[in-house]
Amino acid sequence: MKDEAMALRDTHVTLAHGGGGQAMRDLIDEVFAAVFQPPGMEDQARLAPGALAEAGARLALTTDAFVVTPLEFPGGDIGKLAVCGTVNDLAVGGARPLWLSAAFIIEEGTEVALLRRLVATMAEEARAAGVRIVTGDTKVVGRGAADGVFITTTGVGVIPAGREVSTGQVRPGDVVIVNGVLGDHGACILAARGDLMLSTDLVSDCAALGHLMEAVLAAAPGVRAARDATRGGIAAVLNEIAGVAGVGIEIDEAAVPLRDEVRGVCEILGLDPLYLANEGRLVLFVPEDEAGAALAAMRTLPEGAGAVVIGRAVAAHPGQVRMRTLFGGSRIVDMLVGEQLPRIC
Amino acid sequence: MKDEAMALRDTHVTLAHGGGGQAMRDLIDEVFAAVFQPPGMEDQARLAPGALAEAGARLALTTDAFVVTPLEFPGGDIGKLAVCGTVNDLAVGGARPLWLSAAFIIEEGTEVALLRRLVATMAEEARAAGVRIVTGDTKVVGRGAADGVFITTTGVGVIPAGREVSTGQVRPGDVVIVNGVLGDHGACILAARGDLMLSTDLVSDCAALGHLMEAVLAAAPGVRAARDATRGGIAAVLNEIAGVAGVGIEIDEAAVPLRDEVRGVCEILGLDPLYLANEGRLVLFVPEDEAGAALAAMRTLPEGAGAVVIGRAVAAHPGQVRMRTLFGGSRIVDMLVGEQLPRIC
Repeated sequence: MKDEAMALRDTHVTLAHGGGGQAMRDLIDEVFAAVFQPPGMEDQARLAPGALAEAGARLALTTDAFVVTPLEFPGGDIGKLAVCGTVNDLAVGGARPLWLSAAFIIEEGTEVALLRRLVATMAEEARAAGVRIVTGDTKVVGRGAADGVFITTTGVGVIPAGREVSTGQVRPGDVVIVNGVLGDHGACILAARGDLMLSTDLVSDCAALGHLMEAVLAAAPGVRAARDATRGGIAAVLNEIAGVAGVGIEIDEAAVPLRDEVRGVCEILGLDPLYLANEGRLVLFVPEDEAGAALAAMRTLPEGAGAVVIGRAVAAHPGQVRMRTLFGGSRIVDMLVGEQLPRIC
Repeated sequence: MKDEAMALRDTHVTLAHGGGGQAMRDLIDEVFAAVFQPPGMEDQARLAPGALAEAGARLALTTDAFVVTPLEFPGGDIGKLAVCGTVNDLAVGGARPLWLSAAFIIEEGTEVALLRRLVATMAEEARAAGVRIVTGDTKVVGRGAADGVFITTTGVGVIPAGREVSTGQVRPGDVVIVNGVLGDHGACILAARGDLMLSTDLVSDCAALGHLMEAVLAAAPGVRAARDATRGGIAAVLNEIAGVAGVGIEIDEAAVPLRDEVRGVCEILGLDPLYLANEGRLVLFVPEDEAGAALAAMRTLPEGAGAVVIGRAVAAHPGQVRMRTLFGGSRIVDMLVGEQLPRIC
C-alpha cells in the first residue's frame, strides 16, 4: 500500500522509478498524472469517439519522437516541442487534434524538478491547443544509456467529412504561403548549444498551429496542401511536395522572410536558411483565387501575423524546386543528402 | 529528386539518416515504409473509423516506450515486444486492436541489418495480431546518446458497445486466472545479458494476447478485469487491482505456475518470481460461475494452454495481497518499492 508520507521525496530520477514498483507509481502519480489528469486509472485511455463517429469523418494518427538538445531553450523546451510538433502534424493534414499520448524515456540522474517543468509546459501547451494528453508511459534507463529525456507523442485527430488537404493535390498555379519568418528554431537551438560561442536574442518559433489551420480552412476551403517545415526546413518540404504532386515549385528569394540574426548565423556558419528547422511554421499551397482570403485569415492570429507569399507551383521542371535569387538568377534548391543539424527536434 | 542508384547502401546508421534529407528518406522508404506499407505518403495516417463509429463504441488509446536490453533475445526482440506490449495493453482493457504507430530512436552506428530484422519482426507480429502499423517516425542520435534502439508504439483500439473490463469492477469471490507459467521473460532477459554467466534454455513468453482476450470474452462475458503482468510482475498487477477495487487478494503458492528453470534462476539470484516481468501473460478476474468457461476457452489457444486458477479476491484485508505458502503459512505480497531488473521491456 502506498504510504502517503513516503511520497516522492527524491530530487533525481533513479532506476527504481522505472521498475514497475512503488517508486514508479509515485513518480507517475505525482509528476505526470497529477498534471495530465488522464481519465481513469487504467493503462489505456477510454474515450467517446465524438466527432469521429460522424458520417464521413476520418481518424488521423501521427507520432513523433523528440530528442532535442538542449532540453530547454529560449522560447520552449522538449515538452512544448513534443506537444506542438504532434498537434502540427495533425493540423497540416486537415485534422482537428483530439488526444495525445506521451511516452518518456528518462536517463537515471535526471532532475525531478526538470521533469516537473516539462510536464507543466506540456499541460499548458495542450490546453492552449485544445487537445488532451490522455495516456502515457515512463521508462528509466541507466546513466549514459540516453541523453536526458526523450519524449514520444502520438496524436489522434478527426478530419471532418469532405475535407481533403493532401500534398498530392497541389497543381501548377497554386500559391505558396508561409506563416512567418523562417529558421528561428534551428538557429536558436544552434546558439543555445553554446559550443559555437554565438550570442543571439533568437527565440524558437515553436508553436501549435491547429487554430491557424482551422482559420485558414474556414476562409479558404480550397487549400490543397500544408506541411510543417521541421527537420530539413522548407527545402525538404517543398522538394517532397514537388515530387509527390509532380509539379515544379518556384520561390522568390526576395520574398522569403528571414530575421537579420538568422541570416547572420547562417552566413557565419555557412548554413542555408532554407534547410533550417522550424517548429511553428507551415508551408501552404492555395489556389490563386483563395490566396488573399487565406493570407487575411492567417494574419488575424499571432502565429500567422507574418504570413507572406513566397512563390508558386508551376508546370515546368516537375519534381524540382528552384529559387529566383536576389541577383535575378535561378538556382536549384535540392534536398539535402546529409545532416545539417542533428537533434534539432 | 531521388536517384534510385543512390538508394540505401549504408551498412550502419549515421546522423545523416536523422537529418530530414535524402538519406533519411532512403532509410524510411527502404527499411520502414517498404515493410509497414502505410497508407499514403503523408506524415499522418488517415483512416476510416469503421467500428469506432458504431453506437456505444469507445476508442482505446495506449502507449509504451520499449528500452529492453539486449535488443534481441531468445523468443523475441525489441520489435516483437513493442508490437505485443501495446496490443496487450489494448486487449486487457477489452479493446480490439486496430492500428499502431511506431517511433524509433536510433543510436548512430546501429546496423541497418538489425533495423531490418526488427522491422520484419514487427510486421510479422502485427499481421498475426490483426493490427496495422500505419505511421511512424525515425530519429537518430549520436553515439552514446542512446543505447542502440528504443521503440515507442502507440495503439488505437475499439471497445465494443456494452463491454466493460475494468480493474475497479473486481469483487470478493472473483477467481484469479493466469494464462501460463510466469517469469519466463524476466528470467530469459536476465540470462541473455550474459553478465551473470547463467546458461539456460529459457525463452521469453512475449506474445500478443488480443485473440486470447476475445476468446475469453466470448466464453465468459462477465470477465471483470484483466491486466498484462509486465514490469513488476503479477505482484505489481495484483497490488494495483487490490488497491483500485478495494478488495483483498489471496493467491496460493502451490498453484502459481513456474518452470523449474525460473525457480532456479530466482533461487540463485535471490529474486522473487512474483515480481519477474512477463510479456505474454495476463491476470484475469472472473466471476466464479464463469471461471470454468474462461479456462476452457483459454486452453483452446496456444497462448492460453497453461491457464490455471491461482487465487481469488476476498473481502478480508482490502488493498492487500496475501499468498498461502507451500508450508501452510501466509505472507504479504507487497509492491516492490525499488527496482528488480532495469530495462526488462
